[in-house]
This record gives sequence, structure tokens and C-alpha cells, in this order.
Amino acid sequence: MKIVVDIFGGDNSPQALVKGCIDAMRERNDLEIVMVGDIGQVSDELKKYPHDTNKIELCDAKDVITNDDVPTMAIKTKKESSLVKALELLKNREDICGLVSAGSTGAVLTGGIFKVGRLKGVGRPALAPLLPTKTGGNVCLIDCGANVDCRPEFLTQFALMGSCYMKAMFDIENPKVGLVSVGVEDKKGNELTKEVFARLKEMPINFVGNMEARDALTGDYDVLVADGFVGNVLLKSVEGTASMVMSMLKKAVMSSTSAKIGALFMKKAFKQLKHDMDYNTRGGAPFLGVEKIIVKAHGGSNDVAVKAAVLQTAKMAEKKLIENIAGELRAMEGNA
Amino acid sequence: MKIVVDIFGGDNSPQALVKGCIDAMRERNDLEIVMVGDIGQVSDELKKYPHDTNKIELCDAKDVITNDDVPTMAIKTKKESSLVKALELLKNREDICGLVSAGSTGAVLTGGIFKVGRLKGVGRPALAPLLPTKTGGNVCLIDCGANVDCRPEFLTQFALMGSCYMKAMFDIENPKVGLVSVGVEDKKGNELTKEVFARLKEMPINFVGNMEARDALTGDYDVLVADGFVGNVLLKSVEGTASMVMSMLKKAVMSSTSAKIGALFMKKAFKQLKHDMDYNTRGGAPFLGVEKIIVKAHGGSNDVAVKAAVLQTAKMAEKKLIENIAGELRAMEGNA
Repeated sequence: MKIVVDIFGGDNSPQALVKGCIDAMRERNDLEIVMVGDIGQVSDELKKYPHDTNKIELCDAKDVITNDDVPTMAIKTKKESSLVKALELLKNREDICGLVSAGSTGAVLTGGIFKVGRLKGVGRPALAPLLPTKTGGNVCLIDCGANVDCRPEFLTQFALMGSCYMKAMFDIENPKVGLVSVGVEDKKGNELTKEVFARLKEMPINFVGNMEARDALTGDYDVLVADGFVGNVLLKSVEGTASMVMSMLKKAVMSSTSAKIGALFMKKAFKQLKHDMDYNTRGGAPFLGVEKIIVKAHGGSNDVAVKAAVLQTAKMAEKKLIENIAGELRAMEGNA
Repeated sequence: MKIVVDIFGGDNSPQALVKGCIDAMRERNDLEIVMVGDIGQVSDELKKYPHDTNKIELCDAKDVITNDDVPTMAIKTKKESSLVKALELLKNREDICGLVSAGSTGAVLTGGIFKVGRLKGVGRPALAPLLPTKTGGNVCLIDCGANVDCRPEFLTQFALMGSCYMKAMFDIENPKVGLVSVGVEDKKGNELTKEVFARLKEMPINFVGNMEARDALTGDYDVLVADGFVGNVLLKSVEGTASMVMSMLKKAVMSSTSAKIGALFMKKAFKQLKHDMDYNTRGGAPFLGVEKIIVKAHGGSNDVAVKAAVLQTAKMAEKKLIENIAGELRAMEGNA
């Protein structure tokens, strides 16, 4: 199984990217990586780790797309960038099944659509990160920002794609799909979600109804469907609040000597909490609805996150996620 | 200053409502309360506390609107309910300046519009709760659910009303107004927010630009503007995440003996954290844009929350919030 990695995307490139790839290959024997980026720097990094040279292919790319670039422009003009070259390899080579990048989200999404292409029948591909749940599991939020203005049919496809994804990743037989709304009652929602609600009820998925954002992380749902604007607000509220509570906790701890002593005893517990909340162990967000697997890792990904994203990409390929989505879409169209 | 209170709205009625009113009157000497609800039960509650009978007026209402009632129907047909009677007193009596209810949100909003009436020039009144910030302050989120489908002019009025509210409540000279969006850059947003962005830039308020939901609680903003759907998702994500982090923390604490010992030392710190996160000390959410002051307290409000909501209502009246909003609206129309 061969995966192409944009070694120069992300804040910690190339070090974290190279190390993450090496660690992923150690975990999966069948994994091969095409590393795209400045060949000199990549080679230097590779020297740090023992590795099977037969399993690593290098592709030189001297340029980098940054967060300061305008995505559409960068994808068109920065032909020598590691991301554009990686996308082209993904598109053109049949032996490469997926791509991982920790680079500019906008550029990865734009590049995914323009260089790799939408899957037949998909209105809008969507970004689908995992969030941690209270019960120690994961919930997939789709879309979290790729499409800020949506038509109802986009959201019904998000539901279907998210469902396929959770089946593939966690072997959940009938992923529970919730529609992000302002209350759990059937009639709650805005014009868009009311229309989507009616359509989801007719679909061959396990649609459990409207969901209140308060229950997003309870573990009662496997997939949360939203337009990209609402999904983005939900995702970032979760991040912002978690960070605020942790910082309030820190402040409370530092406020007295006895609390400081207490915190020493609780070191392990705090570490566990931090681990449970940590994105880095969750891999990246797949961009679902394009012709091949694309996983966007967090810009700040460390080597652990990169390793997780690479393994996640491999699993998606192994489970034939793209083929499944394509099949489900055809079946839905056939019924419509 | 006279305020009417719906004693039979909320999960803890009538006890918490009566006690909250009494405690508020103890704090403000100039406060008088009209208590609406079953006169026998209210009188029994009142017997528990020493109070100045000249400052309390009782209005009998035998019926109650619950969360199971359909709001529009209940407001029309439950004429003997404590909420409908309270709304009518607010509308008809010049000496009553505001209303507090912990009852069904839908009924309070519907009743506010149909019984009390929109302020002249207001497209849509909006619900505007306060959220705690990292810096120990408050941020007003407007709208958080009254209007799930909005036109741009509704949001510009939300910005203006939220701004007036924060000026009145916290003496902030130029409240910093942020527009809830998917990124801080000027061009980020969906069709609605892009149009709103352009209009907010032209308004005589301190509009600081687009805001990412991640930064909602940083203290960098005084007012967050959103349509009711997005605002509701933001509000409930914050609530849900805070509750999840606290429960993960609890689990982490219970996971080992040393952590349990540590938690004993940290009791005070945890209590402080819980207090900082507590809604009950923040009062209720004003329903801005109606002709008189209406404050919706949380359904689960205890006596502390009721007291806070009553004092908040008094402060809004004292600061002439309604008159200020009306004046600003006229000025805006004049300029348009």
C-alpha cells in the first residue's frame, strides 16, 4: 500500500513529517511512502532513522505553499510546491492510494477538487474531522468548513459519506447520524436543516434525528451532519471551550498552596485528561467526496499526529472507503 | 422600580422564584415586585421570609405554561397562566418596567412579541445571554436562538442592541463587536455574514471584524453577533464541552488513589472553577428588541440565579436600555 506525503506542509516540517512516516511504516509492514519535498532536506532527515530504502520513494519539490498563499492561486501557480506535486502523483499514479498533508487547509481542499477531482455524483466534497466523546470514543463532524453555503442535497451526501467513513474506520455497523440543529424535536431547525431532515429520514442510513450542539460529544452519535459554516463554529467552539476550561483549571490550581500540592498528586490524572483531549492521537480530517483518499492533518501536527494520519489513510484505503462511498451514492441515485 | 416575576415558570418554582425575589429586594431598596402565580402557594412561600409587604404585590394565576406546551398556542389560549398574566401586566402598566421568567423559552419569546410588542424599527427581537470569558469577564452572544433564519438587517440590529446592552450592564464605553464567522479574515464567511460584515463596517459601533468560534471566550470581544441558529450551536457547544471536560476531569480524579488525595487538597480550587463556570450567578438572557425589558432566566435557575436575573432587569431599567436602543435605531435609520 503506497501513500504520498507532503513533507513540507505544516508547522513542524520536515522533521515531524519524516519521523511520523517512518513510525507508521514500523507499525504497518505493507506500507510504502512517497515523500515529496526538498530532496536534500528529506534525505538528511531520513539519515536519522534506520529504514528500508525499498519502501521509500523520494520526489523533489523545491517550493512550499504556506498559509499566507491564496489557495486557488497557489494551486494554479506553485507547480513546484510539495503539495501540488503530491496531488499530481496521487491523481496520476494508480499505485498510490492516498495523500497526507499538514499544509494550508484551503490549498489542500482546493487542490483536492482541482487536481484530484470530485467523485462522480458528489455535489461538494467535505472535511470530516473526528472529535473525542465523553465515552472515550469518536464522533465524525461533516462538514467542518469546506462548504460555507450549502444546498440540502450536499448535506444528505455528507451524511452518507460520514456514515461510510465511520463504518470503515471503527467497524460500526450502523453509524448513528445526527443532524446539527437547535433542538432534538423533529420540527426544530432552520429552512436548510428542515429540508435536510425530511430527506435524511428517507435515506438508507441510521438517521437518529436532530441533535443539539450540547450533545455533540456525549457519544450518542457517530456522525454529525452540518453545513460547513455551522460545523466550523461547532468544531471551534469545542476547541475554544476546552482550552478555556483547562486554563481556568490551571489558574484555580495556582491560586493556593494546597491546590498546588493537590495538583502534584494529580499529575497523572491531568496527563490522562490532556491525552484524552489531544488531537495529535486522532490523526487528521479526511476530505471526503474526492476521487482518492486525502487526509488533512492539523497544521501543528507532531510526529505522533503524522503517524496517526498516515495509518488512518492506510486503513481507509484497506477498507475501500472510496469504492464504498461511490457505491452508496450510486444506490442512492438509483432510488431517487 | 417595579418588576413583574412569573413565579410559576421554571423547574424550581415557586420556592426559588420567591426566595430570589426577596433576596434581590434585600440588595436593592428601591425594588418592588409583582409576583404572578397561585396566590395561596406564593403566600405560603412568602411566610418563610421577613419582608416589607408594601413592596410586594400579588397577582393570582392558576395556570402554568410548561415546556410541553406549543408556545404560540399556549400564549393564545392559556389566559390564566402566570406567564400570560405577567406579560399583560408588563404591557399595560406603566409603573412596571421589566419582567423575569424562568419558564418555557419559546413561550417567553412568543409572548414577548405578541403580548408586549416589538420596539419600533426592530426587524426581529433577539435573545442575548452572557457567557464567561477567560479573563473573568462576560461576552454577550446575540442571537442565540430566537431567529433561526435571518436577513442581514436583523444581524446589524443585533449588533446595535448587544452593544447598547453591554454599555448599560458593564459601563463599557465602546463594546467590541465581533461577527461569528469561520475565520478572522475580512473575506471569510458565508453569504449572510459577508453581507452583514459590509454593513457592520459602516455602522457607528466598535466593529472589530470576523471572529472564529475558537476565540469566543477569550475576552477579546464584548458582543458576538450571529443568526439564531449559529448562535444556538455556539452557545450549546460551549455548554456541552465545558460539561464534558469537567466529567473527564472527574473520571481522571477517580482513577487513582493519589489523584483522589490530590483532589482533596484542590477542593477550593475546583469550587472556584465551578463557580466561574456557573450560569446561576450570571442572571438571565434579555430578549432585546421588544418594547419593555424581558429577561429569560434558565429553566433550572435556583434562587441565586433568580436574584441575579431580577437585579439585572432592574439595572437595565435604571440605565434606560430600551430608550437607548430606540434612540440608536432611530439614528441608524436617519443615516441609512
